[in-house]
Amino acid sequence: MRITEVLHMNGGIGDSSYANNSLLQQNVILMTKPITEEAITKLYTSLNNPKTISIADLGCSSGPNTLLAVSNIVKAVDNHRKKLRRRHSPEFQIYLNDLPANDFNTIFQSLPKHEEDLRRELGDGFGPCFFNGVPGSFYGRLFPTDSLHFVHSSYSLHWLSQVPKGIEENKGNIRMETTSPPSVIKAYYNQFEQDFSTFLKCRSKELVKGGRMVLTMQGRSSENPTCHLWELLTLALNEIIAEGFVEEEKLNSFNVPLYTPSLAEVKFIVEKEGSFTIDCIEASQIYWTGYNGTDDYEVNNGYGVARSLRAVVEPMLVSHFGEGIIDELFHRYTKMIVDSISTRPEITQFTNVIVSLIKM
Amino acid sequence: MRITEVLHMNGGIGDSSYANNSLLQQNVILMTKPITEEAITKLYTSLNNPKTISIADLGCSSGPNTLLAVSNIVKAVDNHRKKLRRRHSPEFQIYLNDLPANDFNTIFQSLPKHEEDLRRELGDGFGPCFFNGVPGSFYGRLFPTDSLHFVHSSYSLHWLSQVPKGIEENKGNIRMETTSPPSVIKAYYNQFEQDFSTFLKCRSKELVKGGRMVLTMQGRSSENPTCHLWELLTLALNEIIAEGFVEEEKLNSFNVPLYTPSLAEVKFIVEKEGSFTIDCIEASQIYWTGYNGTDDYEVNNGYGVARSLRAVVEPMLVSHFGEGIIDELFHRYTKMIVDSISTRPEITQFTNVIVSLIKM
Repeated sequence: MRITEVLHMNGGIGDSSYANNSLLQQNVILMTKPITEEAITKLYTSLNNPKTISIADLGCSSGPNTLLAVSNIVKAVDNHRKKLRRRHSPEFQIYLNDLPANDFNTIFQSLPKHEEDLRRELGDGFGPCFFNGVPGSFYGRLFPTDSLHFVHSSYSLHWLSQVPKGIEENKGNIRMETTSPPSVIKAYYNQFEQDFSTFLKCRSKELVKGGRMVLTMQGRSSENPTCHLWELLTLALNEIIAEGFVEEEKLNSFNVPLYTPSLAEVKFIVEKEGSFTIDCIEASQIYWTGYNGTDDYEVNNGYGVARSLRAVVEPMLVSHFGEGIIDELFHRYTKMIVDSISTRPEITQFTNVIVSLIKM
Repeated sequence: MRITEVLHMNGGIGDSSYANNSLLQQNVILMTKPITEEAITKLYTSLNNPKTISIADLGCSSGPNTLLAVSNIVKAVDNHRKKLRRRHSPEFQIYLNDLPANDFNTIFQSLPKHEEDLRRELGDGFGPCFFNGVPGSFYGRLFPTDSLHFVHSSYSLHWLSQVPKGIEENKGNIRMETTSPPSVIKAYYNQFEQDFSTFLKCRSKELVKGGRMVLTMQGRSSENPTCHLWELLTLALNEIIAEGFVEEEKLNSFNVPLYTPSLAEVKFIVEKEGSFTIDCIEASQIYWTGYNGTDDYEVNNGYGVARSLRAVVEPMLVSHFGEGIIDELFHRYTKMIVDSISTRPEITQFTNVIVSLIKM
């Protein structure tokens, strides 16, 4: 399994699409908005009436969130410009990055309307905005040297560049869990440290001096790496094996390239890499109610949560197990979540690590 | 019909896809290669060891040609770098532009292999290349001020931004023909002049001083605007109407937004707009044999030509006439081309206008 080919959210705009099942990720962007806004306005103030501001969103995915993050950023600049009484708006060069298998076509087709909405909201003095799609792994170089002012990345950096090597002993699990041997936990951490350091090194070349980054990752608040939603998916997979749908060997060789770091780990790696100073770093909790603002019971009570995880993980599962088991697997998984959520609402609590960085 | 939504080549990689039916456009790129190479090497020489070179291909489509043009350009720079004994390769910032409905996903998925091939061919000292997709009409701004060094556009600028206004009298034709009233020919020219001037104005803002453009358009060598391949398509449509497949009114309201300028017209508009000097301009003929280098009779003798036009025009036809007539229409059209081509090979002769410009 080549991660760059199978790590992408479900495309299109159907029932199982990421576009229609990404409320958690949206809430995370809204939650971190104050930190992002503070970083971009500080940056804009420090640039003396810049002609162009280059902004990259790394791991932009395909759906409403893709444009939500960058919209908030350009709006924050424009509001601050009006406060500072600067007459001329900068031009915004906006780079939307994700892996090549991401559904860029759907993003691009939504852009004309989005640009119209922005212009209507912010008035004639604003912009222009130029949008670019940048296909490629952010664990490599994506942009020319000294070409970026601001980097945003939300809910992407917990995805590793590959499944860690040396985790053959992680039997019965599909990622690191409390029951994983210490060598597996270590291998996962090492892969994260290597990937995140590479990320920082690449971005340090691409950002101008004084440029800024705001990164949000799914993290963990204690040493315990367990995430109940993944644990339930493992359970559902094990059920399917017990009933003979899949061979056990197939499960043992499946590991999700996901690492949820602690705040301390993120801080340690940033300081060790040495290109950035930390303006602020924090961990916060978010409840994933799956609530979408409607009274739709099917969406709000676990069903939505299951669909959201499906939108994220389906391409990976299909690549490893084939299409055949998907519906059966998610039927069981959904039932498990719906049953659990009423008695243990904490299973949908997530920890996020948010860090705001300045290029030295 | 909104041109920005329906003017795109057939996507994907199937039998009717543009990717598999774009040999003419490929031959045009190869034919104009010497002019493009001269322009980019002159530019590279004039830039004193640039850190980054920004190159845009406007109307890149989706298929083998998409990367052919920019590959030739970066290879020319790298070869010239070696001749000049400059040690450090510039970084290449490459922008691939087309309308938002273009199939960018297919391009993006082919990039990793393409980059690998480039690196293998040109060696470690080369690059890196950073690829970006830029969705939008080139009859508007696409890039920040002073951000481009080189613009290439092949076989795109003969497409207008809209069907000209005031051509209701163009009955029985689907574009300007010798039988079109003078008011229709004038309306087509006016639309071209307005569009091409807008194009030049936008690019003059985006290109640095001394930046260059090489533009190739399908043109005409005399006052006669007829193109036999389009004429045959009109005939096929008229046949279908005579047999009651489509209403005549439907045909009368269908006009293809295509204008084939003469060399003199292109020269006149460039000089009138005033932002560019002409380094060279020429008109040349190309025979569209449809020959693809194999002995495949089905491809070489008219069938390929018909398929190629279908790949270009199908989305527009579907949008206006519906899916229903397409197979029947192209069945007849193919037969007409195959019959005509043996007795009148000149029907597949095209005139191209190529102009190499320098930003003042």
